[in-house]
Amino acid sequence: MASDRIVFIGAGGAGLTAAFTIARKRPDTQITLFSRDDTVAYSQCGMPFVLDGRIESFDKLVLYTPDVFKDLGLDVRTGTTVTGIDLDAKTVTIEGGETLEYEKLVISTGSIPFIPPVPGNDLKGIHRLLTLEEGRSLARAMKEVKNVVIVGGGPIGLETAPAFLHNRIAVTIVERMPQLMPSALDPDMTMLLEDHLKELGAVVVTGKGVDSINGTDKVESVTVGGETVKADLVLLSAGVKPNVELAKKAEIDIGPAGGIDVDEHFRVRRSGRVLEDVLAAGDCVEEVNAITGKKMVCAIGTVANRQARYIAEQLMGNRIPYAPVLCPAVCVIGDIQIGNVGLTTRACEAAGIKPVSFKAKSFTRARYYPGGKQLDIKLISDGERIIGVQLIGEEGVHGRVNELTLAIHKGVTPAELADMETCYAPPVSPMIDPITYAAEMLALKCKRAKK
Amino acid sequence: MASDRIVFIGAGGAGLTAAFTIARKRPDTQITLFSRDDTVAYSQCGMPFVLDGRIESFDKLVLYTPDVFKDLGLDVRTGTTVTGIDLDAKTVTIEGGETLEYEKLVISTGSIPFIPPVPGNDLKGIHRLLTLEEGRSLARAMKEVKNVVIVGGGPIGLETAPAFLHNRIAVTIVERMPQLMPSALDPDMTMLLEDHLKELGAVVVTGKGVDSINGTDKVESVTVGGETVKADLVLLSAGVKPNVELAKKAEIDIGPAGGIDVDEHFRVRRSGRVLEDVLAAGDCVEEVNAITGKKMVCAIGTVANRQARYIAEQLMGNRIPYAPVLCPAVCVIGDIQIGNVGLTTRACEAAGIKPVSFKAKSFTRARYYPGGKQLDIKLISDGERIIGVQLIGEEGVHGRVNELTLAIHKGVTPAELADMETCYAPPVSPMIDPITYAAEMLALKCKRAKK
Repeated sequence: MASDRIVFIGAGGAGLTAAFTIARKRPDTQITLFSRDDTVAYSQCGMPFVLDGRIESFDKLVLYTPDVFKDLGLDVRTGTTVTGIDLDAKTVTIEGGETLEYEKLVISTGSIPFIPPVPGNDLKGIHRLLTLEEGRSLARAMKEVKNVVIVGGGPIGLETAPAFLHNRIAVTIVERMPQLMPSALDPDMTMLLEDHLKELGAVVVTGKGVDSINGTDKVESVTVGGETVKADLVLLSAGVKPNVELAKKAEIDIGPAGGIDVDEHFRVRRSGRVLEDVLAAGDCVEEVNAITGKKMVCAIGTVANRQARYIAEQLMGNRIPYAPVLCPAVCVIGDIQIGNVGLTTRACEAAGIKPVSFKAKSFTRARYYPGGKQLDIKLISDGERIIGVQLIGEEGVHGRVNELTLAIHKGVTPAELADMETCYAPPVSPMIDPITYAAEMLALKCKRAKK
Repeated sequence: MASDRIVFIGAGGAGLTAAFTIARKRPDTQITLFSRDDTVAYSQCGMPFVLDGRIESFDKLVLYTPDVFKDLGLDVRTGTTVTGIDLDAKTVTIEGGETLEYEKLVISTGSIPFIPPVPGNDLKGIHRLLTLEEGRSLARAMKEVKNVVIVGGGPIGLETAPAFLHNRIAVTIVERMPQLMPSALDPDMTMLLEDHLKELGAVVVTGKGVDSINGTDKVESVTVGGETVKADLVLLSAGVKPNVELAKKAEIDIGPAGGIDVDEHFRVRRSGRVLEDVLAAGDCVEEVNAITGKKMVCAIGTVANRQARYIAEQLMGNRIPYAPVLCPAVCVIGDIQIGNVGLTTRACEAAGIKPVSFKAKSFTRARYYPGGKQLDIKLISDGERIIGVQLIGEEGVHGRVNELTLAIHKGVTPAELADMETCYAPPVSPMIDPITYAAEMLALKCKRAKK
């Protein structure tokens, strides 16, 4: 039985990136990664854009081929499922019964899709879009379908909707909550997205859950709030949940948000006691919200990737505490970019924060400069500082989300943001930046709210 | 003789914007503005893009017509030159001898172009591009010329170069300093801009001054470093200097950088004594550099506009001290955007700061996503915090300049910037933001520099 120094269970954004970093900086480290998938090191986020033809093929999304792993001395075992962890013996068991010792273990098992517990949820024609194989399979299936139901109003499903529509496939989007993207956007902002999807030809049904997926062998229709919608393909995009099955089996503590409960050094706990040699990172762990201080899960690639840097340092002996996060995000749905960071109005209320917000309709370029796009901004404050931002527009979203992420982390007030210096040129911005304007209005509202 | 409450000398970005704000918030205030120009309230920065055809006409650049001033009760006297200020009598005298009393005076006389003191600098065919009239005149002249020499490598001239080139007019750009845009970019970053201009067909001559402009009545050629270049049009873009003639005549103090020396409430001084009722703002004043603490002039529209908000509040009785500034800027030259904020390497050295810098060649989108553009970033630190940024690319510049402006103002370190959360979607950014990568490398260099 080989003795491996570091074993990773899962080779996604968190695990593989951390392994790469260590392999580069400490080439003498023995590293083994296990992945249930056949392909690792690809971009999940790129898949909707292969489906809509903007990216040539799924092959383009593969970032590293197996020979790169070999060159780095990484032992990457794809198509291999880990079935158990023995924390006392410091071993993992893989399918077939082989066990492997570890000195350090990293649980980076990612997330699993939420599958609505409805009749027919195992019919043929039901697709997901988390792995590259699922992407390829969906691409093949797309060629032969006419009616698609997307179950769930999360980003990946919505990003994929235009791919169907461009191929003249009818699309119905079904979201149980009263609005699309409820964790990222307020209802008044979501309406802009909904309008865009409708313009593209989609039917959007919100506030109604899926009752059943119908068909004998293959999907034929979906029943939603009592009504039946024709469907020869269903794309499940109802969110993901942390994949903690293996951790649970090993009696590792799970936190209140359903993810593995780690400390600020990503060490897991068993019955409240920190285990020095077992770390967890990526979609499967909980983190602390920088505004509310509460535990949450945040299954996005940037977060996993950022955690990987901490994990790698940690495993190389540099202990840097991981601070609470904001999880900024941007997605591109058809022609529009949607960005958000911090709390929504609903999240404020859930956290007992009374939000003061201002919504501005702005422009991405000088008014007189051709090609400018509408930019909708919602800024949210707790009355003192900026705590949330939502942006929708055809350009100019990404940079502003990053700017606001920094602003929130630094505790910037609306008045301070309104007064911040900005740059300007007619082809790329108005003289008064949309953020400046929205912040100025929000500062006034906060001032009035205090009286 | 009428008694006016507030008199503005100059109706550019600073004066007019402040007057507008006051007129809206305090409609009972008597406000008179004097402008030498026939047209006010237009976008200077838009002019290069009218010349290159991206904007339909100069009329589009006019933001407000005279009836808007009337509606607001503003007395705007265009084509009127103020010839004197009597600080003791609290009056201004205009051409023709009429005098006007003021309670509060705002000197917002802007800047004047620097005209190289060479023979022939008054020939016909020499153009500038500061006023709308000059823009219209240049547009007419462009139709009949074949060879243009742009004197000075500042942004406005460079932004205009593509307009000539697109019209198959030969362009030679002459800059006395060894590089283009010396106050915004380091030489290694300027090279990218120079390459782009050469690709567009321009001839770029740096490190050589203009000896003379030649011709009998009209420009025929320009002699540069001993060599003669054919020219039937010369565009002067050799920078501007504060227009302080009137202030000097009134014995108002001029500061070390050549602008009016104002305090943090924009009050001018006479022999070191602050004058309570005389303010100055815009291109004609000096401000304090937020990094070096030294006085400088910063003739850009965003700064004037931001000052206008302070001036307006000040005149309405709300005294908010104006803090030192960074003057972030972005310009668009042909297809590329150039952004900068903070100090260049040269400015660091002049200020006695030993810079540590890192230059990164990045990409604006995920590598596999089509249409991504090269993005060149130079980050500069004093070894502790970020103090300067330069960006060149076809997209993604504006938002990052604003993000970095906030970062510099908040004293963010390279390590902190490298660790900052960022958002990501393949069509709008790489997974690791170019700023994150550059900051990470810079943090390492700073760490090594300390050892």
